[in-house]
Amino acid sequence: MEEIEAQIERFIKEVDENALALYAKASKGKRLRAKLILKIAGESKESFKLAAIVEMIHAASLLHDDVIDEALMRRGSDSINALYGDKTAIMLGDILYSKGFLELVSYDREISKSISDAVAKLSVGEMMDVTLSEKINLDQKLYFEMIYKKTAVLIEATAQSAAYLCGKDSQAFALYGKNLGLAFQIIDDVLDITMSDEQLGKPSLADFKEGKTTLPYIYLFESLNDEDSKKLTSLYKKELTLDESQWIRIKMKERGAILQAIELAQKLGNEALNAIAHDKNSDLERVMRDMIERDF
Amino acid sequence: MEEIEAQIERFIKEVDENALALYAKASKGKRLRAKLILKIAGESKESFKLAAIVEMIHAASLLHDDVIDEALMRRGSDSINALYGDKTAIMLGDILYSKGFLELVSYDREISKSISDAVAKLSVGEMMDVTLSEKINLDQKLYFEMIYKKTAVLIEATAQSAAYLCGKDSQAFALYGKNLGLAFQIIDDVLDITMSDEQLGKPSLADFKEGKTTLPYIYLFESLNDEDSKKLTSLYKKELTLDESQWIRIKMKERGAILQAIELAQKLGNEALNAIAHDKNSDLERVMRDMIERDF
Repeated sequence: MEEIEAQIERFIKEVDENALALYAKASKGKRLRAKLILKIAGESKESFKLAAIVEMIHAASLLHDDVIDEALMRRGSDSINALYGDKTAIMLGDILYSKGFLELVSYDREISKSISDAVAKLSVGEMMDVTLSEKINLDQKLYFEMIYKKTAVLIEATAQSAAYLCGKDSQAFALYGKNLGLAFQIIDDVLDITMSDEQLGKPSLADFKEGKTTLPYIYLFESLNDEDSKKLTSLYKKELTLDESQWIRIKMKERGAILQAIELAQKLGNEALNAIAHDKNSDLERVMRDMIERDF
Repeated sequence: MEEIEAQIERFIKEVDENALALYAKASKGKRLRAKLILKIAGESKESFKLAAIVEMIHAASLLHDDVIDEALMRRGSDSINALYGDKTAIMLGDILYSKGFLELVSYDREISKSISDAVAKLSVGEMMDVTLSEKINLDQKLYFEMIYKKTAVLIEATAQSAAYLCGKDSQAFALYGKNLGLAFQIIDDVLDITMSDEQLGKPSLADFKEGKTTLPYIYLFESLNDEDSKKLTSLYKKELTLDESQWIRIKMKERGAILQAIELAQKLGNEALNAIAHDKNSDLERVMRDMIERDF
């Protein structure tokens, strides 16, 4: 992974020294997408560079996301917009996006098309996320379209491109990446409800307060009687009392909404594992299993 | 040009219907870049699409610029950030950028590299513009680097790509585009000083107030005695009285700073005309002459 960090820094330095100094202050994240590339395509100059490109594009999307969501923290550190203002975060995001695209052009068209198509969808996903947070959304189709575009599509394109790079079955790895992204987002949405503030390292039940009716909420609304449904609606976008938080958690469990969401994530995960079973790639299998076979 | 507008709309619609509705509210601009492509490469499906791509990328950069500059107007209309907020402008910009890149991938690498390299520089140019506006900049080199990246580089890449598309001398047209962009920006900076509010359709002498020491100011500072230099420094970023505005205009004329800037723009313009003289393209010659041979 150090080689990838160094490659990202070389890329940014080629564009602008100041941008590199700013980038140094940004949260580096888990590098999930870079790891996927190395685990699928192995280590090579081409795969290091592609990993650096995808991580730059992902970082750009987070920089803009944090401005749009007015998020002052990113993985426990101050976000760039919190440190240097929205303008700087927008400009640094544009620099990372555009340098990522510039370097992408050197790859085969199958790869550059796949990644740039994902980025176009990613931007739409961010817009959908904002729009769907304006009022309660009970449409599963819209929820799935949004998490596909906002979270899964770049992981799908990453896995697909990595497979293409080393001549593996790119359709199978695309499905793995897509379902990994979808399952990740569903689990993330579940943990917002089931975990304590301490376990999360941020306030729990934040999604509903921010206007996001994630999958467990959609399932819950589908299963509640009129009275409880009205009560849940009345809590939307509200600062919750302890009693109200407790009530949501109890209903989520009682009506099976949490379990239903976890089971869907597991189904997606198993589908992905089947798709790449022929590759006998224990690393990739572990990544997926760690996510879907955990404590909730 | 209608074909290009229709192509832009088709491209945006392919990504997202909502984005198209938003885009309809954005200022369409002069379409200078699109016109350049048609005037260099002629009309063809390829040139219409390339023109649409470049205009989408240019529109994206303006959307982000207006957020960064907190500009509420764009060519006499409300900017998208003024109408729908910064978030929407950032997201629409990201959608236009990424769809532009996605479509660019279908072109020859010479073209996709040229345009995407320009966009990376464009982002850096916007950052330089902001940084250089923090305090008085008297460094001509930094000014020229900034206006090259912020204004000229995409016009350069556009003209170069159009020439490549139709097998013309891409180096010559690149120089034409670059110098057209530089001259345009220098003239724009001159008009901010020489024109009245009514002629400009916005407050004149706005650059200095916003922290921009454009070329005429750099020339003026170089020619002033200590006392006048101190006085000019004291007016930096200030709301000017009528007397102070008048004083700046008189000194600009008296010290020849305006003329010096105009002469440089004309020199750049003539260099560009020489570079493409072999093409005997009266349209392109007129575009340049209209800009450098006008009333100031």
